[in-house]
Amino acid sequence: MTDADAPPARYDDLRALFINCTLKRSPELSHTEGLMRRSMALMQTQGVDVDLVRLVDHQVAPGVYPDMREHGWEVDEWPELWPLVAQADIVVLGTPLWLGDVSSQLRLLIERLYGHSGDTNDKGQYVFYGKVGGVIVTGNEDGVKHAAMSTLYSLQHIGFTIPPAADAGWIGEVGPGPSYLDEGSGGPENDFTNRNTTFMTWNLLHQARALDDAGGIPAFGNVRSQWNDGERWGYDANPEYR
Amino acid sequence: MTDADAPPARYDDLRALFINCTLKRSPELSHTEGLMRRSMALMQTQGVDVDLVRLVDHQVAPGVYPDMREHGWEVDEWPELWPLVAQADIVVLGTPLWLGDVSSQLRLLIERLYGHSGDTNDKGQYVFYGKVGGVIVTGNEDGVKHAAMSTLYSLQHIGFTIPPAADAGWIGEVGPGPSYLDEGSGGPENDFTNRNTTFMTWNLLHQARALDDAGGIPAFGNVRSQWNDGERWGYDANPEYR
Amino acid sequence: MTDADAPPARYDDLRALFINCTLKRSPELSHTEGLMRRSMALMQTQGVDVDLVRLVDHQVAPGVYPDMREHGWEVDEWPELWPLVAQADIVVLGTPLWLGDVSSQLRLLIERLYGHSGDTNDKGQYVFYGKVGGVIVTGNEDGVKHAAMSTLYSLQHIGFTIPPAADAGWIGEVGPGPSYLDEGSGGPENDFTNRNTTFMTWNLLHQARALDDAGGIPAFGNVRSQWNDGERWGYDANPEYR
Amino acid sequence: MTDADAPPARYDDLRALFINCTLKRSPELSHTEGLMRRSMALMQTQGVDVDLVRLVDHQVAPGVYPDMREHGWEVDEWPELWPLVAQADIVVLGTPLWLGDVSSQLRLLIERLYGHSGDTNDKGQYVFYGKVGGVIVTGNEDGVKHAAMSTLYSLQHIGFTIPPAADAGWIGEVGPGPSYLDEGSGGPENDFTNRNTTFMTWNLLHQARALDDAGGIPAFGNVRSQWNDGERWGYDANPEYR
Repeated sequence: MTDADAPPARYDDLRALFINCTLKRSPELSHTEGLMRRSMALMQTQGVDVDLVRLVDHQVAPGVYPDMREHGWEVDEWPELWPLVAQADIVVLGTPLWLGDVSSQLRLLIERLYGHSGDTNDKGQYVFYGKVGGVIVTGNEDGVKHAAMSTLYSLQHIGFTIPPAADAGWIGEVGPGPSYLDEGSGGPENDFTNRNTTFMTWNLLHQARALDDAGGIPAFGNVRSQWNDGERWGYDANPEYR
Repeated sequence: MTDADAPPARYDDLRALFINCTLKRSPELSHTEGLMRRSMALMQTQGVDVDLVRLVDHQVAPGVYPDMREHGWEVDEWPELWPLVAQADIVVLGTPLWLGDVSSQLRLLIERLYGHSGDTNDKGQYVFYGKVGGVIVTGNEDGVKHAAMSTLYSLQHIGFTIPPAADAGWIGEVGPGPSYLDEGSGGPENDFTNRNTTFMTWNLLHQARALDDAGGIPAFGNVRSQWNDGERWGYDANPEYR
Repeated sequence: MTDADAPPARYDDLRALFINCTLKRSPELSHTEGLMRRSMALMQTQGVDVDLVRLVDHQVAPGVYPDMREHGWEVDEWPELWPLVAQADIVVLGTPLWLGDVSSQLRLLIERLYGHSGDTNDKGQYVFYGKVGGVIVTGNEDGVKHAAMSTLYSLQHIGFTIPPAADAGWIGEVGPGPSYLDEGSGGPENDFTNRNTTFMTWNLLHQARALDDAGGIPAFGNVRSQWNDGERWGYDANPEYR
Repeated sequence: MTDADAPPARYDDLRALFINCTLKRSPELSHTEGLMRRSMALMQTQGVDVDLVRLVDHQVAPGVYPDMREHGWEVDEWPELWPLVAQADIVVLGTPLWLGDVSSQLRLLIERLYGHSGDTNDKGQYVFYGKVGGVIVTGNEDGVKHAAMSTLYSLQHIGFTIPPAADAGWIGEVGPGPSYLDEGSGGPENDFTNRNTTFMTWNLLHQARALDDAGGIPAFGNVRSQWNDGERWGYDANPEYR
């Protein structure tokens, strides 16, 4: 197969962070990571600097503050992980499915990201503005879309931009069965999953490229401190239509 | 309050479509529309061409095809509404809450949008690529975020781009109580709701501006027909990492 | 296979109502109905009086009142369907999946059931107290559990009792593929789906038997009018623990 | 107010377990616990033996096995907590809300409960059969119903019975604001929350009383080992209706 078209841009100045929210510590095999690595590999063909973190390998304390050691926990490795998020242009979360929903590690991560929702970038916007988010889900049964709903919602709510089709995943037929990387699962060969993973990955790249080229999102109409100071950017805060 | 900064661009070439999924037909008062109109008004200050559709005013047949008259329904007004979606740069869905979830009209709309998921734009991408989506929710009790999750998920999955904080809403304290436009509800004065509505509206405008200026999303890595023809855009469809 | 044990009771005085929330009108084939009929057939072997309604065959108006003709709609067939709900001991809702969520017909039904949340039984309890609820979901892709969550939540919230494992469903491997009744889908032979459908059906029967024998749920601690009159049934409405 | 009617039964042989899934360790104030204690207090007036566990006070390892020390974790206190679940007739989970969803501690708990889904009781049923479940949610913004959906779904799916209205919660008006126990929150005085908490508590008691009196759920149609041996209890596993 020849590809008539070259990529429309270079991406080798971008950074992507993949966070695997499996319940299994390294070096246990994570099926979710199996699918994540395929998106990572595609980004790497374009020169993107890609990091992978398996959250459960780290002692991350529960809580909604940037450093839980300041709130009574002796150990909290989140402050060491945060710089990877802070510098990433693209963040992709991966989760397995349990009872049709995301893992506890995914929720832990969302809580810790939310803990930075008071941080701002140099334009005064929430710190996640200008970043792009996606999600990868695997299980052997059901729940890809539900897990994606909750995860992508959280990401966009705190400031990420979500490009089209930013969710990819694999599950087998309903009921117990092989997991993604298991011999004969059909996962790695699944055309639907492969196509979605490809489209997601390229859409993340396109959106990150656009945001990076534009210097992020215009800081007009979305700066909290200015709102607090009374700026309304044309919004009529006292309409009389009732 | 004077605004030191002018908007970073003009938006008067953009079209926005607001679809109100209330269960109440015109001219009954829709509280959800009350909040939607505030976002609409802000867009109109920027010259955006804004349409509002109340879905329940139209006889839209249930189904997942573009024209249900071809599938046994005598009446289906969806084909008359579809051009408004097709030409919109921004689509904002509004829904009331019932038992903590979206209205049946919202689901009906999602099904009809999904019915166009086989349509493509002139680049060969899914027809919703290049459009921007948001959601507005009101109720008197609970469920704004859940309704937003499901709605924004559906929009991004079929091709919309979701900018940061693309969900705004209002609910009162838990339990029955006044609705948004009711006297004394506190809704129209709610600072949190007003801020979120403002940020959402501007972020929709910024994203639509960027996509319009760029001629949409690059058609690389996301064209279904090319995938079907064997193109993989660098994705390794046969990895050997197991 | 011989069954050593006889059923622990008779069930031939019970009534069950199955409501199919497919988007397809009769006589179109509904895959969801295919699975629903298997639960129905099992109930019928026990002499249960079973009704099946396909909601989309009826002109049910959107809204949250018992009769929408009193609220501006010329036609509303819900009042003709309501007696089937009112007399049922067991109600099982069936839904297909679109974008990982329930159908618009399912939401329409929930809204109409909710419209009766002010009705009370002869003990003064909400009218759904003493009834038992379950859900059946089919699709070709993903979302059984998410659809079950939302549906069972709504049912229990308005007064249904939910026995163990009251959700059954079938989906194929992720991505487009055959639907439940399609030749070669694997659905009708799926051991997991068959087992879940069987367990669900029997658990619905056991719970309905128990509630019927007991004359419903004791009317103590759950009668709205008594609460409004000041009764608290031992609940300390003014604790001083702060 | 005098109560003309005495409770319909005694409950002093029942055991209830409340598990608080707050992110805050003791002795930090948990608002969720504030509401949970009101349901607990009502049960205690009836002589129920009530336990309260704050999950985050314990070192519970992530995973889906009964004892994660057998799967590589040095510490796992779950095996010490499990007997409290095993002996409980009623289990009520409490969770705060973050971004409209349950806490990571709640998901951790669900995963650990799920880890026992292979355990059986002395009738051969899944070990949660015969237990009754409920949920209590607090936050200052939004998400009570969504959190209840996911939680009650998981409980019923693994074997709990869910009585009517088994979800109670409190949130303030949309946006940041006081939490449940904060001075002036309005939470402890909220009539809707108090009524729901009361109804939930009594419905849990009624259902637990009924199941306890009946010796649990009949072991007919729901025993996995018998299904595996070929028993079908009247279910037609090979229908010919296509």
